[in-house]
This record gives sequence, structure tokens and C-alpha cells, in this order.
Amino acid sequence: MLKAAVLGATGNVGQIFVQLLDGHPWFEVTTVAASERSKGRTYNEASRWRQSTPIPEAVAQMEVVDIDSRAVKDVDIVFSALPSAVAGKVEEDFASAGYVVVSNASAHRMDPDVPMLNPEINCSHVSLIEEQRRKRKWDGAIVTNPNCSTTVLTLPLKPIFDEFGINSLIVSTMQAISGAGYPGVASLDIVDNVIPFIGGEENKMETETQKILGTASKPADFKVSSSCHRVSTIDGHMEAVFVETKKKAEPNAVAEAMENFVGEPQKLKLPSAPEKPVIVTWEKDRPQTRLDRMEGKGMSTVVGRIRKDPVLGGVKFIALGHNTIRGAAGCGILNAEYLKVKKFI
Amino acid sequence: MLKAAVLGATGNVGQIFVQLLDGHPWFEVTTVAASERSKGRTYNEASRWRQSTPIPEAVAQMEVVDIDSRAVKDVDIVFSALPSAVAGKVEEDFASAGYVVVSNASAHRMDPDVPMLNPEINCSHVSLIEEQRRKRKWDGAIVTNPNCSTTVLTLPLKPIFDEFGINSLIVSTMQAISGAGYPGVASLDIVDNVIPFIGGEENKMETETQKILGTASKPADFKVSSSCHRVSTIDGHMEAVFVETKKKAEPNAVAEAMENFVGEPQKLKLPSAPEKPVIVTWEKDRPQTRLDRMEGKGMSTVVGRIRKDPVLGGVKFIALGHNTIRGAAGCGILNAEYLKVKKFI
Amino acid sequence: MLKAAVLGATGNVGQIFVQLLDGHPWFEVTTVAASERSKGRTYNEASRWRQSTPIPEAVAQMEVVDIDSRAVKDVDIVFSALPSAVAGKVEEDFASAGYVVVSNASAHRMDPDVPMLNPEINCSHVSLIEEQRRKRKWDGAIVTNPNCSTTVLTLPLKPIFDEFGINSLIVSTMQAISGAGYPGVASLDIVDNVIPFIGGEENKMETETQKILGTASKPADFKVSSSCHRVSTIDGHMEAVFVETKKKAEPNAVAEAMENFVGEPQKLKLPSAPEKPVIVTWEKDRPQTRLDRMEGKGMSTVVGRIRKDPVLGGVKFIALGHNTIRGAAGCGILNAEYLKVKKFI
Amino acid sequence: MLKAAVLGATGNVGQIFVQLLDGHPWFEVTTVAASERSKGRTYNEASRWRQSTPIPEAVAQMEVVDIDSRAVKDVDIVFSALPSAVAGKVEEDFASAGYVVVSNASAHRMDPDVPMLNPEINCSHVSLIEEQRRKRKWDGAIVTNPNCSTTVLTLPLKPIFDEFGINSLIVSTMQAISGAGYPGVASLDIVDNVIPFIGGEENKMETETQKILGTASKPADFKVSSSCHRVSTIDGHMEAVFVETKKKAEPNAVAEAMENFVGEPQKLKLPSAPEKPVIVTWEKDRPQTRLDRMEGKGMSTVVGRIRKDPVLGGVKFIALGHNTIRGAAGCGILNAEYLKVKKFI
Repeated sequence: MLKAAVLGATGNVGQIFVQLLDGHPWFEVTTVAASERSKGRTYNEASRWRQSTPIPEAVAQMEVVDIDSRAVKDVDIVFSALPSAVAGKVEEDFASAGYVVVSNASAHRMDPDVPMLNPEINCSHVSLIEEQRRKRKWDGAIVTNPNCSTTVLTLPLKPIFDEFGINSLIVSTMQAISGAGYPGVASLDIVDNVIPFIGGEENKMETETQKILGTASKPADFKVSSSCHRVSTIDGHMEAVFVETKKKAEPNAVAEAMENFVGEPQKLKLPSAPEKPVIVTWEKDRPQTRLDRMEGKGMSTVVGRIRKDPVLGGVKFIALGHNTIRGAAGCGILNAEYLKVKKFI
Repeated sequence: MLKAAVLGATGNVGQIFVQLLDGHPWFEVTTVAASERSKGRTYNEASRWRQSTPIPEAVAQMEVVDIDSRAVKDVDIVFSALPSAVAGKVEEDFASAGYVVVSNASAHRMDPDVPMLNPEINCSHVSLIEEQRRKRKWDGAIVTNPNCSTTVLTLPLKPIFDEFGINSLIVSTMQAISGAGYPGVASLDIVDNVIPFIGGEENKMETETQKILGTASKPADFKVSSSCHRVSTIDGHMEAVFVETKKKAEPNAVAEAMENFVGEPQKLKLPSAPEKPVIVTWEKDRPQTRLDRMEGKGMSTVVGRIRKDPVLGGVKFIALGHNTIRGAAGCGILNAEYLKVKKFI
Repeated sequence: MLKAAVLGATGNVGQIFVQLLDGHPWFEVTTVAASERSKGRTYNEASRWRQSTPIPEAVAQMEVVDIDSRAVKDVDIVFSALPSAVAGKVEEDFASAGYVVVSNASAHRMDPDVPMLNPEINCSHVSLIEEQRRKRKWDGAIVTNPNCSTTVLTLPLKPIFDEFGINSLIVSTMQAISGAGYPGVASLDIVDNVIPFIGGEENKMETETQKILGTASKPADFKVSSSCHRVSTIDGHMEAVFVETKKKAEPNAVAEAMENFVGEPQKLKLPSAPEKPVIVTWEKDRPQTRLDRMEGKGMSTVVGRIRKDPVLGGVKFIALGHNTIRGAAGCGILNAEYLKVKKFI
Repeated sequence: MLKAAVLGATGNVGQIFVQLLDGHPWFEVTTVAASERSKGRTYNEASRWRQSTPIPEAVAQMEVVDIDSRAVKDVDIVFSALPSAVAGKVEEDFASAGYVVVSNASAHRMDPDVPMLNPEINCSHVSLIEEQRRKRKWDGAIVTNPNCSTTVLTLPLKPIFDEFGINSLIVSTMQAISGAGYPGVASLDIVDNVIPFIGGEENKMETETQKILGTASKPADFKVSSSCHRVSTIDGHMEAVFVETKKKAEPNAVAEAMENFVGEPQKLKLPSAPEKPVIVTWEKDRPQTRLDRMEGKGMSTVVGRIRKDPVLGGVKFIALGHNTIRGAAGCGILNAEYLKVKKFI
């Protein structure tokens, strides 16, 4: 078993890391680190555990340590669920101290020498680690996963991109409140309400999508326009996607491409890889957030209502994925599994 | 005072007609008609009044009559809040019996000789009444308002259309549960959920938008693509709109065009006309459904977040309007006011 | 494996029966029966499956049959999720045809010769089957589980009743929308709302509680007063309980009694028996509906905030249980397991 | 017009004070005070106005001043919407500086020499001001209104208390999120959830109810037991109340007492006094939070489902009132109106 530290372990994404790593065949949480406020308390006390599965017993009684590479000892991998404002410097310190940091934070995602992996799509980008180590003069590494809404979006885009090409795309999101962490969105802001703004999200969706679907050295050159909205759901980001393809793309052919799509995680049978990265539903009113977000144990994007788009000339469809599993901790763990198999850890 | 009948008076939109007509300076509800089930009961008993203002006293004790032109006597105007399946034939019967029917139902909206009025935009389409009477050989008339989501959308489109031209547009909606009537959407379908499908809605948005922004005889020739979603809000349809303009349209110029926009209802000072059909907000996270749906007494569309759209090359923005007021009964009443001023009633 | 029929299999509780029986070690669903409307369609088509786990493959393709003892062949046990209006006569027919009917319907619950089992509490009431068979002259049997809110309530009452005695109790409920079935509660009735009325529920809580905590022949003689309310939660009934005990009952002693409480299902290690029927939490703001309803796989009642009650002189506490699992299908299955072990099936 | 300062004007209750005082016939907001963070900004900037009516123009451009009796000049009355932790000392300073402080904060409510007025019930308690001034050696005064849930509860209790006597009562609440202020309750804590705990609330309901229904010098001696729960509603506290009366109280007689109940505010025709402090509804499923909270412009308690209580031997019923209007700012303003008429201001 590889020993893992979780940084920012008491927050919502940190808790999902702890939850998903409970019983993991390769990784074992041996260190939980969080901010000053939690230091010295047990994880159970500090985390105010808010998941609907019980707090893993082995972790519950651990003492929370500082988010400091000197306080974290004897671990083989570091998972970062830090807020971005903190993550930038801290993750560099850990990489500099020799750790492989698998991060959900946005701080380093767009750095040209940092892989941002949605591993079914672009795990070849791990090649950037070499450049990163050379330029930054460290033995560790920083590897990131994309923003939650981008992760959910790019899975079904990949087979379209490969088979039909993409010129441009427009996407409107209906995102769950868990995406804002805890306490996050105030209840007075979301009951009987929609908030048509999520700070930084539209820019992330537009730039991260290009980086993921590009090569390690060059972003894809299609245009992306997004509009991001917060709705009153617990988990699960729904997205209405309109795609202009390079080649004519009939809905049936697009569905077939999605259903046949598998990536390296499936071929390598990584423990957290869903059987199908994209699941296509044909029911007229699906996917629905509450009913479908756990498909593929929360690691698949469910696509429905694939139909012709009269404006962009390609297809439009609905995509749904679990924002804190596939869109955050689950994707990070899948990345770590890939890194292990490829001997980076 | 003109005497008004409300058909389908016990349903949700029927109740909004009764609510908005309470204290109206020109119209007075003197007849309430509903289906067999309600016949002979008082309106109070039959309606299970579900609005947050009290049931108007004058109407509460009226006996509900049949939805039949022979049962409705001595009225000057007929408001129809009938379900579309019923409305087609019934509204023809009333028009045939000489009544002017102002309808919220979709049954006749797309008939080429029936005006579908969002009156700030296309009240000149009332000219179709003449053709309608000639072809259908009746003295009455059917005049409709658009679908709720289309009404909200077309108000801000009109100033763009006039000043910059429109080549195409993409719109994703987040629609309130009241749009489905009562009982309508099951609570198990909407708590912690989004339903990415509303029967017939996308087709309505695409075709009705073209008819409203066209001339009386010819729909506008831009392309429209929509994706419609039901979210957990009581009232208020939010829409993320992406527009390809013919001429270059800077966000500031678009905002100015919207703010300056007025139509005939404003010029004629019709009682239900909002001061501004379109209200522009500059706060970064507005409009919000619960906070802004009652702007202009529920008769305005509130627009926010006007920004450049990198894909279609025009602008993208958020629009919000009240679906059962501007998008249904309120628009119908505004149409009736226009018809009265123009001597059709 | 015993072959099981589920009557009313397409409704919400019917679906939970099918879901919970999937992979059950003793019972296998071989027949699904539903109303006329569903007859001849596959279960997949007819059920519009609405659970967040996938529809069990083995059942998905079964043809739905009539709710008629002549249409149901070759089964060893019949689970009834029928609406009460239908259940009365149908369940008698099945019992008369020799089947053991394990029913969630209220129709026969209060019949003096029908056991209403919450099996940790009163499985000795199965003795009524003998009387039932003699009086009704049938070889089958009808065994019921209590109303959902009563099931959740009576688990923590039992250890209080046994150790301290109960003179009276007052309970106010906050019940989930799934308790009303599908479509059930209209969304316009529950978003930003509480409905302080559930038809028949208060009477059920008051009479069923007495029957369960009594002997097979005589209800318990304490008084019960309830007030039932519907709130906007998907699953999980929360109850604020105030108990007047016969003997002085300190909160700590009550908690200890609850924690030590086990019943026959635990002793017999029945497959669906939770390890603990009652789980006591000491966190100041728990149990919470969404976070705690799945404790004990949805088969436990979670109790929190046990404190002295200054009015009744005993204790007050919060109880929470899963209404469609422990409160309906799960309790029915646990009853069936007990009946099998006791050779009634 | 009397000039009014609002302390804590940017918070949720502060905003309701500003909203309700807009257009008030006697009081005019001339000073808005808030914490350090807001100082020097306009009220519009500082408040992030979150009400569904527009921000009053006259107040929007005012500069926010310090919460300090030296910064507040030239006002005739001070309304306090301060958090309790701050209110204790600050309100004393203002009273000491000669101001009459009408406070919604809990800090001084239970002080024996501070009136806690729900004015239909106990406005005679203003006599405590004399004692307060004497003991505290100040010219000003502190007058409070009760906690929101207590205000709603005590209105219907008063006619029962007067006509039938009260020995004890049990109450379970279902309270709106606005009661916790803004940001207050995290959305992850309330969507698809109930929280069975509100810090300090149960103690407040139990002690404040006794003080209000007692004389100025002595609390009423009946016992109160409460259980407080937060549910997913925006505004409106619902309460399930069980009352043990001294004299036999038939539901019809209780309803009649409630309907006939008026207090000093009605007799004095105070501007904010509702026509009826208690409105009785006979519909079987009312009052409902969203539909009935604005009865009496949010100043009445609506009571429904009055029925016999088999445990306490009196009656049980449902009470609903608007927590930020009747339960906070509206009650404060009504108190101020009474104080003005009685020449305390």
C-alpha cells in the first residue's frame, strides 16, 4: 500500500478524497493536513464530517497536521484539496520537497508545464512532468485535474473531437451547490432561486477545455463560450452543450462514438475507472441530476437528448456528471492510479 | 367597465388572470368557466385558490359555468387559460359566436391568420384579425400571446434585432415549476433535481420567436436553437442567450439599446404596461430568479451579464421574466388593453 | 430461493421492494403485477424506474401481469405495495388462494386478527395468523407492516416502554415527499413550503402505535397525540417526540436502553436486520434527514438530542428513519424473513 | 416625521426594518449604522440588498455610519437589528445617551427591567421603563420584541390564556432559513434536509413565552417544552402547538376566542397593526408557509387545524407567522408606534 496525505482534508472535497480512498486497493490515507484552526485536533473533531456514509474509522482518530511539507512525513503521494489561494505556494513546496502532488486546485492547472489530466482524454500529457522537473528543478511533481464542470464536459467532447472534429462549442451549466464547498452557497441564495454567476468558472471552462483536448504543448484551437449557473441541487453538474463539428455529425453517429469511447484508464483497468466514461441514455427526459449522477459510481458522464443543432450545424445534447467525484476527488484519484502504473510514484 | 369571462379559471394561469384583473381599471371578471368537474360550485370551492394574495371577493362567490359559448352570457371579452388540447375547438366556438378571445393557449398561436402578440414587439400583427375574420367567416377573433419562455426572450431580442440584426441565436432555459400548471411537476421530480426536457417547449421557442419578430405575413429568417430545462423555482424563467448579430454589437451598445427600448404599450400608457419592457442590471450575479422576477410588477424582462460571445461573434446575456405574469396572464391582459384602445373590443 | 410476486410493483414502494429484493439471499422476484394500464408491458416500460440505482436486469424485462391471484402463478410469497383502496379486497383474494401476503397497505393493519409487525418489537404477534386462518377460513395469511411514520417512531419507543413504561406521548413529524408516492405531492405544494396535513396519518400514528406496543390481543393503553407535516425532503421522516414515562427516565438511561435494544431479527441474524434497530447520536444537531437516513442501510431509526421534557416529565428526543425502506418495503421484507424462519412460508 | 436610525442596517433584519419603514407615516430612516466593514460606503453598496422589493431610494445613497452613539446624530428613535453578541453593550450606550432603543436583539430581552413586548399581548409592560431608568440612571430606554418563534406563538396563546387558562404547552417548530440571517444557514445544510437544532432557540421559546404572558413583574407560571427545527422555507415559521388548558376548551370555542382577539394596537389603530392579530383558517391543510405567511401584511399569526389534544387534554393546532416581519422588524416597528402614542418618544 502507498501512503497518502490529503491536504485540505477537512473541506468538502477533502472529505470526498478521504471517503473514496477508504478501502482503496493501492492507496491508504496516513496523514490528514488542514489549516491552523484544525491543527492538533482529531480528524473527526476537525472535519465536522458531512457525508452520508460514515467517517472511515482509520482516519477519524488521526491528528490533523499543518499544511507544511515538514509536517507531513513518510508518505508516497500527496492529494491536494486546498483552496486555490493557498494551493499555489504550498503545492510548489511539496513538489520541491520531492512529493508527487495530485491536485484538485486551480492554481497550477494552466501552467504550461503542469499536466491537467482528465485521464481518459489526455494522459499522454504526463510527459510534461519531465519538462516541469527540469525547469523547476525539483524531484517531485504537480499534476492537476480540471475544474469540475470542465471534467464533466470534456469526456463526451473527446469522441466527437476525434471522429468529427470540433470548430466551436457553446455550453450552459446548471451546477450543484456542493461545487462551492462548505459552507459555500448561502441557503437564502439558492432556495427558490438560480444564480447566473460562478466566479471564474466561465473562463476556466473555456481555457481548460482547450488545454485538455490539445496536445501536451498546444491547446486545441476551437472556440468555447460558456454561461455558468448555480441551481438548487446537492451534487451533479448538468450542462446543455451545442457543438459545431468539422465533419457532418448525425446524432446516432455521435451517440455511437460516445458509447464506444474508452481511454487508457479502461485499458489499464485502473481501480477507479468506470466501465464507460460516457453513458448514453435514450429516454426523452434524462439524464436527471438526482437520478443519474451516481452512474459509473459517479465517475461517468451521462449524455442524453443528442439532437441536431440548427444554429451551429452540429449536435446539441445534455451532459451530467458528479462534480465532487468525477469532477474533483475521483478524477484526482484516477490520475494518481495512472501515475502509479506509469511509475511516477 | 368591460365584462370579462375567464375560461379555465380554476387552473394556475386562470387564477393569475383573476388575480391580475382584480382592481383592473377597464376589465371586470363577471364570468368564470371551467371543466365539468367544477360546474355549479362557487369559484372559491372549485379553484382551491393557491396564490399568496387573497382570492378576490367579487369572484370568490361566483358560480363556475361550463366552458361553452352558450353558457357564457353578456361579456365583452373572453380570456382563455384553457389547456391547449381543449382550447383549439372551444376558442373557435367563441370566436364564431362573436367574441374576441384573448388566449394563452398554444392551440392557435402558429395559425398564419392568428396574431401572436408580445405587444411591445409586434402589435402591428393585429392586422391579421381582418384576414382571420374573412377566411373563417366569424365576427369574433382569436388573439394569442406567446409561450412563457418565448415572451421573456423576445423582449430583449427586439432592440437587438432592430439595431444590430440577428443571424442566429442559441438559448438554454432554467424554467420554474409554475410553468407546468397545477399539479404539474411532481415534487419527487424536482427536489434536488433538474429535468432537461419540457414537452414541446423547444419547438415553441424556435418557431414562435421567428413569428413574433417577423412581419404579420412572414416570420423572421434567423435560426434559433434552444435547450429547455425545469429547475426548482416557483416562478420566473431564466434564460442564457447567445446571439449572432448581423452588425458588430458591443455589450454597452446592446445594453443601451435595451434600456431605450419602448413599444406601443408604453406610448399608449396601457394600464399593464411596465415602464420599461427590458431592465438592464449591471451587478455581476444578477438577475436572480427569486429576487428579480417581480421587476416591473412581473411585466419586465430583466437582463444582466451582457458580454461578448466568442463563438457566435455577438453577445451573450442572462434574461429573466415572470412566466405566469409576463409569460402568460399578464401578457394576455396587456394584449386585451391594446385591442380595446384599437377598438377591436 | 423462494419465488416472490410484487403487487403494485410499478409504484414508488413497489420499486423499492424490487430494488431491495435484488440480490436478496432468500427471495427472488419472479412476478410483477400492476394495474390494468401496465398489463402486458415489460416492467422496464411500465415502471418508469425512478430510483438512483439501476433497474435490476432480471426484473426489467418481465412482463407485468394483472393484480389477480389467477394471474400470479408459482410463487411462494406475495409482497403487496398496493394502494390501500385496492389492497383490501385483493389481499383477501390472495390469502384465500393460499398465499402469504406481506403487505405495506393500511387496509388490514388494524384488523384484530392481522399481525402488524415491526419485528424487533412485536414479532410474537404472528400468533394472530392462526386465529386469522380459523376465522377467515383460508390457508394463506395477511401480515402487514405499520405506517412509515409509526415504524420509525416505535423502534425507539420500545426500549422506553420496556424499561420505564409509557403513560402518554406527543409527536410532531416532518415527513418526506416520497411518503406520498409518485406523482404524490405537487412541486408547487412543497418548494418553499410546509403542508401541515397528511390525510389519515395522525390517526394511523395514534392507533398503530398502541397496537404494536400492545400484546397480540390488546393494544397498549397509553395515549398518543400527533401532528403530521410534509416538508421538502426526498426520503426520511423526522419526528420530534415527547414522552411521559411511568418511571423516572433520565436522558442517559434512556439512551443506554436504546443502544442496548435488540429484537428477534438481530438474534436470528435475519438478512435485512440492521445491527442496531436504534442508533443514538450525541452530536448537538443530529440526526439530519439527508445525512442520517441511510444509517443501518435505511433500516435503523437514528435518535438524537435526548433531553428532559419539562411538561410531560419524561424525555423528549428527535427520531429519524427512512420512510420507504424501514418504513415500508424494508420492513415488509424483514417481516417475510421472519415468517420464513418461523416456517410460515 | 420622527427621525430613525437603524443599527445593523445591512443585515437581513436590518434590511427588513428599512423596507418596512419606507413610506411609514410616522418614522423616517435618516441614519443607517453598521459594522466597521461597511463604514463610509453608501447603504446601497454596503447592504447587498437582497429583498424582492427595490431598495428605498432615499436610503440607498446614505452613507453608512459607525454603530456608535456619537456617530448617530439628530434622531428621535433607534431601531436595533444588531447581532446579540454586539447588542448588549451598544444598546446600553445608546440608552445611556438618551435614546429610546427598540431592539430585536436577544441581549436584554430577559432583563427584569426591560419590556419585551408583543404589543397585542403585554404592552402594559412598558411600565418597566420607569424602573429601568431609575435603576440604570439613564434617560433613554431599551424596549425589545421577542424571538421570532415566540412572537408567532404567543399571539394565539393569549386568547387561550385569557379565556381558558394554560397549565402547560408543547411546541415543535418548522422554521424558515431567513431566521438565521444572511449568509446564515449553508445551502448544503438545508436542501433535502431538516436540521433539528437552532442554537438557544428552545430556551428562548420557553422563557420568553412565560415573560410575555406574565405580568410586568412576574412571568406566567405554566410550563413550556419546545423542539426547534430548521426546514427549507424562505420565510415563515410554522409551529405545531399542544396546549393543556385549565378549563375545558373545545376547538370551536378556542377558534372563537382567537377570532375575537384584539389588543391595544388594534384599538389605537396603530399603522402597522394588522386588522386581526390571529386569523383562523378552517381549510384542512392550512396554514401553509408560502401561501399564508403574508396574511395581515406579515403581521398576523394564521392558525389552523384546531382540534382536541388527547394527551394534554386541551387543544392542538398549527400556527404560522412571518418571522422577519411579525417575528422581528415588524414587531419592533409596532412597538415603536405604541411608544410614540404613549409619549415615550
